[in-house]
Amino acid sequence: MSSHTIDHPIATLDSSLVERLPSSALTLFEAKKKKNLSFEAIAKHIGRDEVACAALFYGQSKASGEDVKKLSELLDIDHATLEAQLTGWPDRGRTMEMPPKEPLIYRLYEIVQNYGYAYKAVLNEKFGDGIMSAISFSTHVEKETDEKGDWVKITLRGKWLPFTRF
Amino acid sequence: MSSHTIDHPIATLDSSLVERLPSSALTLFEAKKKKNLSFEAIAKHIGRDEVACAALFYGQSKASGEDVKKLSELLDIDHATLEAQLTGWPDRGRTMEMPPKEPLIYRLYEIVQNYGYAYKAVLNEKFGDGIMSAISFSTHVEKETDEKGDWVKITLRGKWLPFTRF
Amino acid sequence: MSSHTIDHPIATLDSSLVERLPSSALTLFEAKKKKNLSFEAIAKHIGRDEVACAALFYGQSKASGEDVKKLSELLDIDHATLEAQLTGWPDRGRTMEMPPKEPLIYRLYEIVQNYGYAYKAVLNEKFGDGIMSAISFSTHVEKETDEKGDWVKITLRGKWLPFTRF
Amino acid sequence: MSSHTIDHPIATLDSSLVERLPSSALTLFEAKKKKNLSFEAIAKHIGRDEVACAALFYGQSKASGEDVKKLSELLDIDHATLEAQLTGWPDRGRTMEMPPKEPLIYRLYEIVQNYGYAYKAVLNEKFGDGIMSAISFSTHVEKETDEKGDWVKITLRGKWLPFTRF
Amino acid sequence: MSSHTIDHPIATLDSSLVERLPSSALTLFEAKKKKNLSFEAIAKHIGRDEVACAALFYGQSKASGEDVKKLSELLDIDHATLEAQLTGWPDRGRTMEMPPKEPLIYRLYEIVQNYGYAYKAVLNEKFGDGIMSAISFSTHVEKETDEKGDWVKITLRGKWLPFTRF
Amino acid sequence: MSSHTIDHPIATLDSSLVERLPSSALTLFEAKKKKNLSFEAIAKHIGRDEVACAALFYGQSKASGEDVKKLSELLDIDHATLEAQLTGWPDRGRTMEMPPKEPLIYRLYEIVQNYGYAYKAVLNEKFGDGIMSAISFSTHVEKETDEKGDWVKITLRGKWLPFTRF
Amino acid sequence: MSSHTIDHPIATLDSSLVERLPSSALTLFEAKKKKNLSFEAIAKHIGRDEVACAALFYGQSKASGEDVKKLSELLDIDHATLEAQLTGWPDRGRTMEMPPKEPLIYRLYEIVQNYGYAYKAVLNEKFGDGIMSAISFSTHVEKETDEKGDWVKITLRGKWLPFTRF
Amino acid sequence: MSSHTIDHPIATLDSSLVERLPSSALTLFEAKKKKNLSFEAIAKHIGRDEVACAALFYGQSKASGEDVKKLSELLDIDHATLEAQLTGWPDRGRTMEMPPKEPLIYRLYEIVQNYGYAYKAVLNEKFGDGIMSAISFSTHVEKETDEKGDWVKITLRGKWLPFTRF
Amino acid sequence: MSSHTIDHPIATLDSSLVERLPSSALTLFEAKKKKNLSFEAIAKHIGRDEVACAALFYGQSKASGEDVKKLSELLDIDHATLEAQLTGWPDRGRTMEMPPKEPLIYRLYEIVQNYGYAYKAVLNEKFGDGIMSAISFSTHVEKETDEKGDWVKITLRGKWLPFTRF
Amino acid sequence: MSSHTIDHPIATLDSSLVERLPSSALTLFEAKKKKNLSFEAIAKHIGRDEVACAALFYGQSKASGEDVKKLSELLDIDHATLEAQLTGWPDRGRTMEMPPKEPLIYRLYEIVQNYGYAYKAVLNEKFGDGIMSAISFSTHVEKETDEKGDWVKITLRGKWLPFTRF
Repeated sequence: MSSHTIDHPIATLDSSLVERLPSSALTLFEAKKKKNLSFEAIAKHIGRDEVACAALFYGQSKASGEDVKKLSELLDIDHATLEAQLTGWPDRGRTMEMPPKEPLIYRLYEIVQNYGYAYKAVLNEKFGDGIMSAISFSTHVEKETDEKGDWVKITLRGKWLPFTRF
Repeated sequence: MSSHTIDHPIATLDSSLVERLPSSALTLFEAKKKKNLSFEAIAKHIGRDEVACAALFYGQSKASGEDVKKLSELLDIDHATLEAQLTGWPDRGRTMEMPPKEPLIYRLYEIVQNYGYAYKAVLNEKFGDGIMSAISFSTHVEKETDEKGDWVKITLRGKWLPFTRF
Repeated sequence: MSSHTIDHPIATLDSSLVERLPSSALTLFEAKKKKNLSFEAIAKHIGRDEVACAALFYGQSKASGEDVKKLSELLDIDHATLEAQLTGWPDRGRTMEMPPKEPLIYRLYEIVQNYGYAYKAVLNEKFGDGIMSAISFSTHVEKETDEKGDWVKITLRGKWLPFTRF
Repeated sequence: MSSHTIDHPIATLDSSLVERLPSSALTLFEAKKKKNLSFEAIAKHIGRDEVACAALFYGQSKASGEDVKKLSELLDIDHATLEAQLTGWPDRGRTMEMPPKEPLIYRLYEIVQNYGYAYKAVLNEKFGDGIMSAISFSTHVEKETDEKGDWVKITLRGKWLPFTRF
Repeated sequence: MSSHTIDHPIATLDSSLVERLPSSALTLFEAKKKKNLSFEAIAKHIGRDEVACAALFYGQSKASGEDVKKLSELLDIDHATLEAQLTGWPDRGRTMEMPPKEPLIYRLYEIVQNYGYAYKAVLNEKFGDGIMSAISFSTHVEKETDEKGDWVKITLRGKWLPFTRF
Repeated sequence: MSSHTIDHPIATLDSSLVERLPSSALTLFEAKKKKNLSFEAIAKHIGRDEVACAALFYGQSKASGEDVKKLSELLDIDHATLEAQLTGWPDRGRTMEMPPKEPLIYRLYEIVQNYGYAYKAVLNEKFGDGIMSAISFSTHVEKETDEKGDWVKITLRGKWLPFTRF
Repeated sequence: MSSHTIDHPIATLDSSLVERLPSSALTLFEAKKKKNLSFEAIAKHIGRDEVACAALFYGQSKASGEDVKKLSELLDIDHATLEAQLTGWPDRGRTMEMPPKEPLIYRLYEIVQNYGYAYKAVLNEKFGDGIMSAISFSTHVEKETDEKGDWVKITLRGKWLPFTRF
Repeated sequence: MSSHTIDHPIATLDSSLVERLPSSALTLFEAKKKKNLSFEAIAKHIGRDEVACAALFYGQSKASGEDVKKLSELLDIDHATLEAQLTGWPDRGRTMEMPPKEPLIYRLYEIVQNYGYAYKAVLNEKFGDGIMSAISFSTHVEKETDEKGDWVKITLRGKWLPFTRF
Repeated sequence: MSSHTIDHPIATLDSSLVERLPSSALTLFEAKKKKNLSFEAIAKHIGRDEVACAALFYGQSKASGEDVKKLSELLDIDHATLEAQLTGWPDRGRTMEMPPKEPLIYRLYEIVQNYGYAYKAVLNEKFGDGIMSAISFSTHVEKETDEKGDWVKITLRGKWLPFTRF
Repeated sequence: MSSHTIDHPIATLDSSLVERLPSSALTLFEAKKKKNLSFEAIAKHIGRDEVACAALFYGQSKASGEDVKKLSELLDIDHATLEAQLTGWPDRGRTMEMPPKEPLIYRLYEIVQNYGYAYKAVLNEKFGDGIMSAISFSTHVEKETDEKGDWVKITLRGKWLPFTRF
């Protein structure tokens, strides 16, 4: 974690993405860059998952009052400024043009494109008529290493919501 | 598993989807319906994951000679017919219109839309400049139940591929 | 209800829509036409809301074993045929091209387009960070008449789902 | 209502949305934030429904002279400024990209996508050949709570307009 | 009018359009062709405007019981067949891909594209906040000839619908 | 006409539309607002139809030297400034995203979508193989009132252009 | 011209294009293939330009009674059949998906994309405010050969239509 | 040429188009406007076709060192500034949204849409398997006048490129 | 080459792709399957590159008379049938929906998306103002193997075409 | 290389592209222009391929600490500034609108469109079920000259990734 250098830097905000994001994004990413902190470190500090933490920076997740306080401390951001910018409800989904052009994100999209009906068939058989919630939902990323190299393991966990019969 | 009835049936093929799929899809799904077998049962028989098995039915995954043999036995399909239909390389991704209209599949798409940049930031920090492969990749679905109800847990596991420096 | 004549007919299936629908749609609509029954009458018979009943005909809602039995009786459809066609999980959303071209459906779409952010603001203030479920959901249509003419009243009722904090 | 805090704030304007909105939107939302008033409170003050009130803030509904006066008083906005910005006819529908990416608004869109033809069939049978007006129209949001949690109830009420025979 | 020959024929149905239209379209157009009747002649017989009459042939307008009777007589179509095909509610708007590629129809589309905001400004000033209905609506086509040649005059006449204040 | 007040204002320019319009649009609309003049009044002054006049303000119609002079006088705009901004050839059609989201303009678009083929059939029968010009074209708006309320009457008049035989 | 062999064949109809074309297209192209005639030869016989002749085959241009007679003779097609298929007004523009994928046609599209504004500027300066008609229009193709190889020369000739001042 | 007045002005740059063009476009068009020079006059001065000259102004064609020198002289633009702005390779095609909304440019697009396959058939028969180059290409505009009015004649001339056999 | 078995089969035609292809595609692929021949083997027989050979099967490349003869011999297809189907000019580009959904083809598309401007910059510096022809063009695929595994090497070779100065 | 003049300049950054690129792009391209250096020269200095080097300038490739140092020296850019701008992970793919409008880049896109399925068939036969990686990937451009002129040779080399069986 502490090894973030120019050759393996922390994530920063691409300047061309700024206009699609809430103003808090710029504030948070600039402070993150100055402090040279990874999302892992920040997430640990505020007690949230690192994906949720990154989502919060991109305006895709809501910050609690406690989050604002801890972020303001850790990142040396004026509390009132940050609170003002993070007050309000996230307007989710607008960072991304679909289909995604970014190769890393496209691979996730491709998984949905290729395996979408397979997931549906398996989930219907296992759970019945409904969906996996993307709201009552959490996700987590892990790194696994074996002799073949590194592996990414992403877990998606969502509440099963059956269709109401009416 | 054996409890698949009219109120909780196995997955079958929507007739309006047939024309987007290879001919093997119709053969396999009709036999599955006749035998009233779930993907879990079929997957167990052929020794593959049930998502991979469903993907094979939808023409999104390649069948081995061994798969063909086992499927033909289990589902009572003429071996030569099935082999002829499953010979060839999958032409993936064409079952799905994007954005997906099916609510269950849309939720997966929405996860990519909302958390795409968060995943990218976290993965870059953890692994460097690269992507998670959707090819050197496997996925698995589990059901968890607690006092709040049922939960879907989907695992995506892919090889990390660093960008080549050239 | 019994007044359905050529000048105020029951709803039937537009032939140009058939290929986007599951095979059950044609079976059900043809029988409905033959019996000259409205969705109100059919819904009363099977004990479901008439919108849910129409959705079932269009392949947008799941039929229970009981539904199949009652529909087969009321509409004089061979039980085994109907059961075979209605077994399986609905592949929802594919009847419709978006944006809708049909004027009646477009008006509903336009309400989302115009009032979408207003709904979001009011719901967030009332309920917090989350969404109204379209799955744990029911809807109902009523007719009201006053001196100005007829009014349509559509009720949408969905479970509030708060975003998980993770 | 008076409980709007950082953890359950009032609705504010996402900075990345500003450029799609009339200038009045910024003026109104900034004053709303300063006064920390919910749409419920503002709507009560001006005697309109809270959805209509939020729509007015987003430039989707027309303000009367009386509205301008009351808003200017309640929100401490210079009357002449507000009048100048709110004079003119709303240019509706442009806040939203369709399909909506925001999960809350997408759920409303999905209802139209899935139930569109069902609504049409039921409405035609009940009312004849025509549409429900989205102009001669009002909508209202309610919160219901039972042992399962909170429920959103949205009512759409529009004049039935029969197609002219010519 | 009676001069419809190979060099100035009546309108017939392009075979490549058939699949987008209800089955009544084929029945009606084939009979029209056989009888070599213009829409003007047919419209006169059934007592409707010729645009409405053509719209009825393309499945864009509802036929009354009386229309069916008169069309069946004039065009020598079996009454029961025609009634069966014309029973039901029009599913409007699906004949056309937008933007239209047909040059004649594109010109009408272009008028909306170029003059849309001008119409809105003038109508708002004249009528207030609302729309011209396309439902409570009629249209008519006339031919005018002067020394410069022929002129098309299309009249659109719709009820003004003010937005409800709520 | 002289009754344009806050509750029934003249048309002004939506600030979010400015960037799609030529610079003359802002100049003209600001002066119009200051003078509180309707398009009817301005059109009368410059001797043009009010739709053409509004189109000119939106950059969709060419101003003559005489128009510039009269507009500059009536609206108190510096002649040289206005002339500089209105010199050049209109770059038409770019104000509008298609399909239009504005409800009033959408209704006009919907008329083309629903009646497009009907117009084509009727016009071909009446005029032969050709189109109605949208260039050698004029349009006019009228208000009619009867016991049912107000009616909009829009006239489109265009030269018939036969396809050249070559 | 007479040299059309397997290595330099005449143009025939791609089978995958058939469903987008009127039924006359298949009849004409099949006869053309059987007779092994180029458009140049056919055009000479019917006295029209070869582009117009090819357009007629693709359903993009109207056939006169004389054309039908001559085509039926030259191509040995039953006159009544051909007349029945060619009666009616062309429904133009539907053969082509835009942007064109065919490389030859894409190059023409690219010329419009790259030089569109240049043409407009030059034409406005030369002719005033208007357009070049694509209706009162003809086009012609020539082959030129010099030491560098072969050159295509396409001429587009259309009536200048000035915008009406109204 | 010298007759360019307010009623028949030279072509200038629409302000709403500026952001899609290279910085040279603004420099060149402003100088052109100040000098009140048509493209015909400028083209004559630099010895290029007027379409090529207009394309150069819109950033669609490359300027040579000689062009820069002559343009700088004729238009009184600082040579170093112009050279700096015109150095580099054109990034073609980005001025235009497709399909074009501008009526004049749309007509050219429509010609490709309607006659695309006809051109392909005729060119294949005349030249073989290949395309007309849009790169090794020139175009020219002429004005012809007869008793019916003015006619535009556009010539497209491109090298025929046969597909390589490999 | 001779090792093509069920686990490593030759390429066959996906049944869902048939309708987008010329009729020759089905004939050729069925014969190829029956003979169990790879494109490498077929290409060797007809003396063309294997990519060109595959392109010919998909209707993307022209067959010479010699090709037809050799294919008919090797694949045991009736010569007259094949000649009839392969006579005519390829209608290229229609097999593919863009963006491609097939993962293998998407990777090629992604290379253009990511490196497009880099190629342009490097090619302009190396060659001047022009393009690499995709017509006067050949391509070749090779397999390389090292300790890390297998590598694909695709070569694209096209004539440089300078923009004509005019 | 040293021959870069106004008539054959180095590649610079089109001003209209700036807003889609990271801030480093402007810094790097401005310095490149000032120094009048080609990508070939820069690539040689930093020891990378010239396509990779151009990609780095467009924000499509990651810079190492060593790259930053060498670029800062060669181009006389303040090291800290450049490091700050190049720190972070590339957000790839966003420079390009697809389909590409630039003729040079379109030709590459067209190759994928036309030969996509041919590549897939050949690669599947040669390598099995998988893809060529666009990540574990390099590319190189060469110039070849013969009596017919100049030829571009682009090599794409990527690791073959077999689909995981699961």
